[in-house]
Amino acid sequence: MAEARPVNFGAGPSALPESVLEEACKGLFNFKGTGIGVAEISHRSKEFTSLVADLENNIRTQLGVPPTHKIIFTQGGGTGQFSAVVLNLLARHRLLHPDLSDEQRVLDYVITGSWSKKAMEEAKRLGGGSVHIAVDARKKSKDSKSYDNIPAHEDFDFSADPALIYYCENETVDGVQFSDDVQSPASFPFHLLPAGGLWPLVADYSSSFMSRKIPRIADHAVIFAGAQKNIGPAGLTILIVRQDCIVDVDAAVKLGAVPVPITMSYKTNADAGSLYNTPSTLSIYIAGLVLERSKKLGGVEYFESVNGRKAQKVYTALQEGEKKGVYRSKVKEGSGSWMNVVFDVLGDNAESRFLAGAEALGMKALKGHRSVGGIRISLYNAITEEQTDRIVAYLKHFPTQIS
Amino acid sequence: MAEARPVNFGAGPSALPESVLEEACKGLFNFKGTGIGVAEISHRSKEFTSLVADLENNIRTQLGVPPTHKIIFTQGGGTGQFSAVVLNLLARHRLLHPDLSDEQRVLDYVITGSWSKKAMEEAKRLGGGSVHIAVDARKKSKDSKSYDNIPAHEDFDFSADPALIYYCENETVDGVQFSDDVQSPASFPFHLLPAGGLWPLVADYSSSFMSRKIPRIADHAVIFAGAQKNIGPAGLTILIVRQDCIVDVDAAVKLGAVPVPITMSYKTNADAGSLYNTPSTLSIYIAGLVLERSKKLGGVEYFESVNGRKAQKVYTALQEGEKKGVYRSKVKEGSGSWMNVVFDVLGDNAESRFLAGAEALGMKALKGHRSVGGIRISLYNAITEEQTDRIVAYLKHFPTQIS
Ligand SMILES: Cc1ncc(COP(=O)(O)O)c(C=O)c1O
Ligand SMILES: Cc1ncc(COP(=O)(O)O)c(C=O)c1O
Repeated sequence: MAEARPVNFGAGPSALPESVLEEACKGLFNFKGTGIGVAEISHRSKEFTSLVADLENNIRTQLGVPPTHKIIFTQGGGTGQFSAVVLNLLARHRLLHPDLSDEQRVLDYVITGSWSKKAMEEAKRLGGGSVHIAVDARKKSKDSKSYDNIPAHEDFDFSADPALIYYCENETVDGVQFSDDVQSPASFPFHLLPAGGLWPLVADYSSSFMSRKIPRIADHAVIFAGAQKNIGPAGLTILIVRQDCIVDVDAAVKLGAVPVPITMSYKTNADAGSLYNTPSTLSIYIAGLVLERSKKLGGVEYFESVNGRKAQKVYTALQEGEKKGVYRSKVKEGSGSWMNVVFDVLGDNAESRFLAGAEALGMKALKGHRSVGGIRISLYNAITEEQTDRIVAYLKHFPTQIS
Repeated sequence: MAEARPVNFGAGPSALPESVLEEACKGLFNFKGTGIGVAEISHRSKEFTSLVADLENNIRTQLGVPPTHKIIFTQGGGTGQFSAVVLNLLARHRLLHPDLSDEQRVLDYVITGSWSKKAMEEAKRLGGGSVHIAVDARKKSKDSKSYDNIPAHEDFDFSADPALIYYCENETVDGVQFSDDVQSPASFPFHLLPAGGLWPLVADYSSSFMSRKIPRIADHAVIFAGAQKNIGPAGLTILIVRQDCIVDVDAAVKLGAVPVPITMSYKTNADAGSLYNTPSTLSIYIAGLVLERSKKLGGVEYFESVNGRKAQKVYTALQEGEKKGVYRSKVKEGSGSWMNVVFDVLGDNAESRFLAGAEALGMKALKGHRSVGGIRISLYNAITEEQTDRIVAYLKHFPTQIS
């Protein structure tokens, strides 16, 4: 079956390792020898709760999550967390500073692309605080309207004691990503965070989770990710939350905070070991298989080196084609994502010929997001180096066809 | 494989038809001939969106959902809806009656068991209205503290113009269910609803959805159900919402309503055809397979007749054992659920012997919910009549062993 399957370069839901799919089929019929399938067994059975514990442990070990942080599994996707981080961190801020007005309760947003913008709009919708744009990458873009760059450190302007500081580590649509090298000018400016520590720093890692180490993980309040890029099927959302951000939201509501639906309360979920209500059991199971496989391959370090090579090969091929006038990167050099490489194919009909040619070679789902157009090559963990070599060969060959 | 599998009488997540599991394995590798697995394909692909349309159509046709009502798929489970119904219907009420105080904005709850009680507690947590208990079944129980009955119609007391009227059609933990015969004294008292029509009537059908027809479906504002009992794996929540309850929540918030997280807004989900953000794709797929199979078997009418027979056989066996002093039903006659039959096995150690004996015969997950103890036999759609006959035979045989 391995030879026949097309390569799925889609941005998410996205490719899963074939060995995981095979294992998943077995689990659908017989989970851990119970004779009951994993989608049919009680989430409170000892077999399932131990699966949850293993999944947590796999994330904790591979990413080096410190004991100061809890790992929580929930539903609702990245979009659910756009709301939940605001509600939980506004509650925390309210408990710390009960007497501030909504005006004084500031939410700092770093806007580097469509997803951070959408998260910021949700904070505005929910109210209970006032949004401050710490930086807007469009203002630093080549045409003043594209999310094509990670702004320079001096362009960031954080508030003194905000309720949250939000950024999206990898912008899936726009293809920009913070560098994981804290010395790089495209890194997140941790050194500019307000004095005091215990920052309410929130990072959306939806499309880069487990693809490489998380820089300064211990300094984050909340890291969240939908599973459907690197980890497993949609329906599972993974959270890493520092314990001081797991607060009694109801106590905060009594002081005037925005009410928090029970499924969105970090404390409710953490206290129940992520089993307050029925979780997306099948997604959790498959995510567990993916991370067991990662562990055997060498953990996140393994993917970090493979993913680094994959991205470099693709960007190098693009640059060559760019010199020939065939491709144009949508993103400033140094800000390009390892996970989602976005570019235009120049010339009449060239884009559709590019897509058709790729499709004919069994390479699928390369169309850019509808809001920005062009081509997007997603290089998540399940895309192997060999599969990357195939698209790289195509990127090199395509210009020779049209000249 | 069919012979070897134990029978899973668990209350949810629960049994799935074996033919569906086989089909699901194929879809995991190759969805609709795309060569891409269903957990890996974009939720915006035409193959996936047509699956969503088919699933909706299957529910609409089999249940007879009128065109006045939309069908929405979301995440978060029944518990997520405990919050969402309150938030959306408070917003609707606010738009209809902007000038009422929270005190005057009444939420009527019919309490017949642990799940309706939990939903009511969430309404209290969220605020923005005041909870009125339309009836509390414990007050009508044999010991004044158990949820063992559906109260008589004269015990219900509805408010004049409430923001919502809430009931749980089948109480999974306590094993009581409203009758689907509107003439029965254990039916929901539709005739007592306040004058005016367009009732804000909310029903939790989590554990009975698609097991039989929904009486007076058109008179409901919202019907919701997690998939994990009769429909498919956990992670999918199904909603049937009357269109006047799909309101602009942000307009209501401007008038003072409680803010609604975007993933909980019915309008956001309905406008986006349930694809506002990434749904639990694999759960949707498997639910689709389950309902395709139902259709072939004869739809909800087929399950209604099979489920009626299954329940009758089990209750009859229980009554015989009750006469012998071996079993004691936890539920008043006439209030018993078709889906979850709950009872005690009397005598020292009898319960553990009952469970061990069943286990030895390949019948699993019969332990009652931890809050009430005893035995619970769940008879969801995937439990066949033959499997029911096995537990019935055991129910009859067990008393002869101990006498
Ligand atoms: C970076 C990022 N954040 C958030 C989301 C939204 O996730 P979901 O669709 O699970 O709500 C996405 C989805 O692609 C994403 O890529
Ligand atoms: C009747 C009923 N309502 C609500 C729920 C809660 O559903 P979930 O666990 O999906 O939140 C359940 C769960 O068993 C239930 O049986």
